[in-house]
Amino acid sequence: MRFNGNKLTVAVFGQSHAPAVGMVMEGLPAGIAVDRERLQAFLRRRAPGQGSFTTARKEADIPEFLSGLNGDVTCGAPVCAVIPNADTRSGDYSRFREVPRPSHADYPALVKFGGSFDIRGGGQFSARLTAPLCVAGGIALQALERRGVRIGAHIASVGPVEDDAFDPVNVGPGDFDAVLRNGFPVLNAEAGRRMLAEIGEARQALDSVGGVVECAAVGLPAGLGDALFGGLESSLGAALFGIPAVRGVEFGSGFAASRMRGSAHNDPYAVRDGKIVTRMNHAGGVVGGMTTGMPVVFRAAFKPTPSIGQPQRSVNLRTMEETELTITGRHDPCVAVRAVPVVEAVAALALLDRLL
Amino acid sequence: MRFNGNKLTVAVFGQSHAPAVGMVMEGLPAGIAVDRERLQAFLRRRAPGQGSFTTARKEADIPEFLSGLNGDVTCGAPVCAVIPNADTRSGDYSRFREVPRPSHADYPALVKFGGSFDIRGGGQFSARLTAPLCVAGGIALQALERRGVRIGAHIASVGPVEDDAFDPVNVGPGDFDAVLRNGFPVLNAEAGRRMLAEIGEARQALDSVGGVVECAAVGLPAGLGDALFGGLESSLGAALFGIPAVRGVEFGSGFAASRMRGSAHNDPYAVRDGKIVTRMNHAGGVVGGMTTGMPVVFRAAFKPTPSIGQPQRSVNLRTMEETELTITGRHDPCVAVRAVPVVEAVAALALLDRLL
Amino acid sequence: MRFNGNKLTVAVFGQSHAPAVGMVMEGLPAGIAVDRERLQAFLRRRAPGQGSFTTARKEADIPEFLSGLNGDVTCGAPVCAVIPNADTRSGDYSRFREVPRPSHADYPALVKFGGSFDIRGGGQFSARLTAPLCVAGGIALQALERRGVRIGAHIASVGPVEDDAFDPVNVGPGDFDAVLRNGFPVLNAEAGRRMLAEIGEARQALDSVGGVVECAAVGLPAGLGDALFGGLESSLGAALFGIPAVRGVEFGSGFAASRMRGSAHNDPYAVRDGKIVTRMNHAGGVVGGMTTGMPVVFRAAFKPTPSIGQPQRSVNLRTMEETELTITGRHDPCVAVRAVPVVEAVAALALLDRLL
Amino acid sequence: MRFNGNKLTVAVFGQSHAPAVGMVMEGLPAGIAVDRERLQAFLRRRAPGQGSFTTARKEADIPEFLSGLNGDVTCGAPVCAVIPNADTRSGDYSRFREVPRPSHADYPALVKFGGSFDIRGGGQFSARLTAPLCVAGGIALQALERRGVRIGAHIASVGPVEDDAFDPVNVGPGDFDAVLRNGFPVLNAEAGRRMLAEIGEARQALDSVGGVVECAAVGLPAGLGDALFGGLESSLGAALFGIPAVRGVEFGSGFAASRMRGSAHNDPYAVRDGKIVTRMNHAGGVVGGMTTGMPVVFRAAFKPTPSIGQPQRSVNLRTMEETELTITGRHDPCVAVRAVPVVEAVAALALLDRLL
Repeated sequence: MRFNGNKLTVAVFGQSHAPAVGMVMEGLPAGIAVDRERLQAFLRRRAPGQGSFTTARKEADIPEFLSGLNGDVTCGAPVCAVIPNADTRSGDYSRFREVPRPSHADYPALVKFGGSFDIRGGGQFSARLTAPLCVAGGIALQALERRGVRIGAHIASVGPVEDDAFDPVNVGPGDFDAVLRNGFPVLNAEAGRRMLAEIGEARQALDSVGGVVECAAVGLPAGLGDALFGGLESSLGAALFGIPAVRGVEFGSGFAASRMRGSAHNDPYAVRDGKIVTRMNHAGGVVGGMTTGMPVVFRAAFKPTPSIGQPQRSVNLRTMEETELTITGRHDPCVAVRAVPVVEAVAALALLDRLL
Repeated sequence: MRFNGNKLTVAVFGQSHAPAVGMVMEGLPAGIAVDRERLQAFLRRRAPGQGSFTTARKEADIPEFLSGLNGDVTCGAPVCAVIPNADTRSGDYSRFREVPRPSHADYPALVKFGGSFDIRGGGQFSARLTAPLCVAGGIALQALERRGVRIGAHIASVGPVEDDAFDPVNVGPGDFDAVLRNGFPVLNAEAGRRMLAEIGEARQALDSVGGVVECAAVGLPAGLGDALFGGLESSLGAALFGIPAVRGVEFGSGFAASRMRGSAHNDPYAVRDGKIVTRMNHAGGVVGGMTTGMPVVFRAAFKPTPSIGQPQRSVNLRTMEETELTITGRHDPCVAVRAVPVVEAVAALALLDRLL
Repeated sequence: MRFNGNKLTVAVFGQSHAPAVGMVMEGLPAGIAVDRERLQAFLRRRAPGQGSFTTARKEADIPEFLSGLNGDVTCGAPVCAVIPNADTRSGDYSRFREVPRPSHADYPALVKFGGSFDIRGGGQFSARLTAPLCVAGGIALQALERRGVRIGAHIASVGPVEDDAFDPVNVGPGDFDAVLRNGFPVLNAEAGRRMLAEIGEARQALDSVGGVVECAAVGLPAGLGDALFGGLESSLGAALFGIPAVRGVEFGSGFAASRMRGSAHNDPYAVRDGKIVTRMNHAGGVVGGMTTGMPVVFRAAFKPTPSIGQPQRSVNLRTMEETELTITGRHDPCVAVRAVPVVEAVAALALLDRLL
Repeated sequence: MRFNGNKLTVAVFGQSHAPAVGMVMEGLPAGIAVDRERLQAFLRRRAPGQGSFTTARKEADIPEFLSGLNGDVTCGAPVCAVIPNADTRSGDYSRFREVPRPSHADYPALVKFGGSFDIRGGGQFSARLTAPLCVAGGIALQALERRGVRIGAHIASVGPVEDDAFDPVNVGPGDFDAVLRNGFPVLNAEAGRRMLAEIGEARQALDSVGGVVECAAVGLPAGLGDALFGGLESSLGAALFGIPAVRGVEFGSGFAASRMRGSAHNDPYAVRDGKIVTRMNHAGGVVGGMTTGMPVVFRAAFKPTPSIGQPQRSVNLRTMEETELTITGRHDPCVAVRAVPVVEAVAALALLDRLL
């Protein structure tokens, strides 16, 4: 489950209904000041209970730092932060041992771990585990910012509704701030309203809907990354696919590049303010596995939440008979919304690891 | 540059114009028979010079095994295979030190490695490095086959031309064999002819074109993989993004899942021949980072070859003046075609690593 | 700081005076029952305050499990255990920032981490960190026992006083139990009394004394390990050198082997009860980096505690003037005593990792 | 089998009688000039056939660089070097499949790898594999020297005969050069003569003899290393135990420290030429897992060569009957002699890894 960078490691731990979730972050240099208020503001963007579009589960999500800090500054020892689990309702889950929920981790986890799997709340497969991930990523974001690197994301689409895209050449902190100022993480407020309508409609229909998160990192020097499996896409890709519900990752023009001609896709070099830049940025800032110095731009596709209120077909694993299952309880109708800071967090881990 | 599995490691080495390319594969159990003829047949699918759609560079691509085999059987020591480089024309490349080719590794590699970068043929960033990767992957494919796992890929699209898709529920060895029987790696021969026309047209226009490769792995047990960064998508994704020119990776419905409702995307469980299956396979055989026992289906998007014959804009790094550049020489107009066995190879490495 | 096995990872965290110490253990299979009472008994062997030979610092050392268990059984998620730090007296330590204690981590840690190093109690370099290590190792010992592997250690020497050695051919659980039955961890109770006298004498003299711990693992199959850096000595050696104050590690006859002839050192094979054994075991059960199936026997040398009550020479790092320093406070006069279970713990981690 | 540093990785490959041995070194920065003549001189120190004290097997040991160099300078791609195996006499080895040689890798390797183990010459367990290790280490030594770090070793003892020890405070390049000027790698030429007599006597008696190699690294800054398993002793220890035949490793006073009082063992700080030093160096330059800035001094104990000409007892694995075995052929009577540069090589890898 660990994030394993070259220098930075984050061991995430916890299950949805265990006493706590948390993380141990190793490899951070000593002397990084952690602004706890800003960290908390970052965590609030992931927290549930923000409105109609998220689950009603209440989580304060205030990390307790057990180690690694001297006052508010990293001391060179591994940083451990813990978030207690509260407001858990374990009674809801026992029957999924017998009848696994479609497109949930239940069935493969029961095959893998057998009867000792802690199925309550989805165990270690719960999106709850992204809370400690955001603690680690939030610290990484602060460390990156002090190195001149800024990362920001927004919802690129919810179902068929699309936000404006980042300008891959000129995207910058101004855009990230604009997204934050919107209550809903989009560039185009009108698109955000239509997304909320789409989500509300899905919820009304006891259904859920997928979405895409677009993210950009600016301020990175050229030449980070390496050939083949040492490439930035490999490490960023592995990090992003580690977020629950991500089914696709693309850089720059991504899948659209497969439909382009080279003459249209190639990014000609130019000089701007005495610096080498590319006129366009179809590459998403990564060529040959290495940064070009242009914004690194990528997208992650999230599937619709598998927990829906409609009756579904499944199998009783004990009797091996097909049966019907209705899931009740509290679930986000669109996981992509709360995933926006999670995407920023794991991107920050992968990129800070390259800079260290 | 290394493929770093949990048990399996492949250290790929070489530059396009170094004496050789090769690989060291560590972690293979002793006792795996290597059928050299089948390995060679596999390598031929990647080799250039197969027709109008590939570069004219001639490479025999016959690996010499320096270690790790006792006769034709793995002996438990690391397997080293070497492929000498021949037919290299280094004269073509020297000027790219000064004027980097757009969307090539030249510029970031020069920033990263400085003057000692071996730019000839693109150095270690050359697609030539996929030859030893296919040696390793070819051995992995044979080892997997003996464990009942088969992997096959085809070109899903070239530019706007699409092949039929694998049936995600029923795809199997019969489909893989059908692709191999076609001279061109597609399911639908007519689509193949239109792809060849598209590639020919691009070549005619001194241009190149992108494409998508779809791959499936069948015969895997349920429960392979783990939560978060231990998920199968993370390791397969990292492996696939390690292939030069890959810009996007998606599993199952992938990006399309982001536009779906949960009620349509969820895969209901059913019983078939006393086994748990899913009726559909939008998940692409991976849920919660773990295999479900259904075919693992994924796609990798390839950008158009950056080496095109048309004049392009670039910058002279010495004078910092913008200039024009025309690339001559031998290049695949569509890298996706020869990438089909490469996708199979890296998938085999990532999946064998999970089974060991 | 992490223990990094091939399958098993233990991220230890904490500083001596941080809110807590703890560990995250990843890679344990699901379904391992943890007997908490036996675990607590194991931790008590490491705990201070056992008698005249240990520091008077009081630590309850009762781990709280935050994750990874379902009831008392591992569930396949990472196991996190936390031990709060209490009875810390931080006032004692501030002046060591200016005048580092000889042979302590103070000076190199200040160079490495700068002013943000948490010097209180020695920070992450404190022997306090061996408490969570023993939690992880205690679980590993229980898992090993269920696989038929037993590990036991004793104090081989304190200063010049030597205990009897394990019989490298016949050592077994009976010996380990005998050591446990003695209040002081030795085979020969009389030697134990003389060791206590030696320690008491050192304490009286405001001094400290070194010692050697000998450890054996029995029940391991032949063939664990690999060539070169994959050898068992490399992984066990790295694990043992990870214990604070260890200055030497040897296997079998160890340094004495360097003074032997091959004819005396070689272990002839024989058949006993239909099994291949060696008549002697100068190899300490490891040949060519691999287990032979005989007991694995090794020794770790511990330096005398650097914290002594006598005045010592040091340097004021601010003024760069030489000065005198007297350390007060509570310290073990012989760390080797409490290190006995720590040696068992890290050996258990390294060996369980090989068996998984 | 791989050397796995944090940044530097060396994948060693080959078997004694495979077509070649070699290595792939990853993580070296671009721009390191490799002086091939000095590298060859370094390799000659390990090569056999130097005199009466080594095996008569002839090995030219001239590495062929297949990749990673641009001219004689590292280009940032993995460095692969290959040394063909010649003068192999495989007929000698077949019978050891049935009757394993005492204290050789034969028996555990046959258990581990089964019939496909390449037993000829000991397969991957042969000391022959230290040749490519010395290529990697030789390059690391040159890289270290340019960073102001020098490493040197000598034979501290052969059987009971001892050389003078390095002065742990003042050891330096002058000592290393003195060792090289002696034909036999000792500080005290008279001790060297007695060692040669001891070796000759062992050879005469169809026997072998063990030895100890002492090594020092000077010029390292303070603060390299980390707590617990991140300590320098763990990584250096793992590297040294990776050398075939090493049975013990100690730092500074090592095992002798276990017999000392703290007041004698502690190294008081002092100021010399405006720099912090320690008056003595019982710590061997490593405290709390970190360098102090003083010479890093350590010793590795080598067992006597297991291949001896005297008849030995073993077991026929097919019939499970005890039997006698006489080994003929060419073997070093004292492996410690040729191990001197190997110790320098692996130390260089472990230390360069820390500096990168």
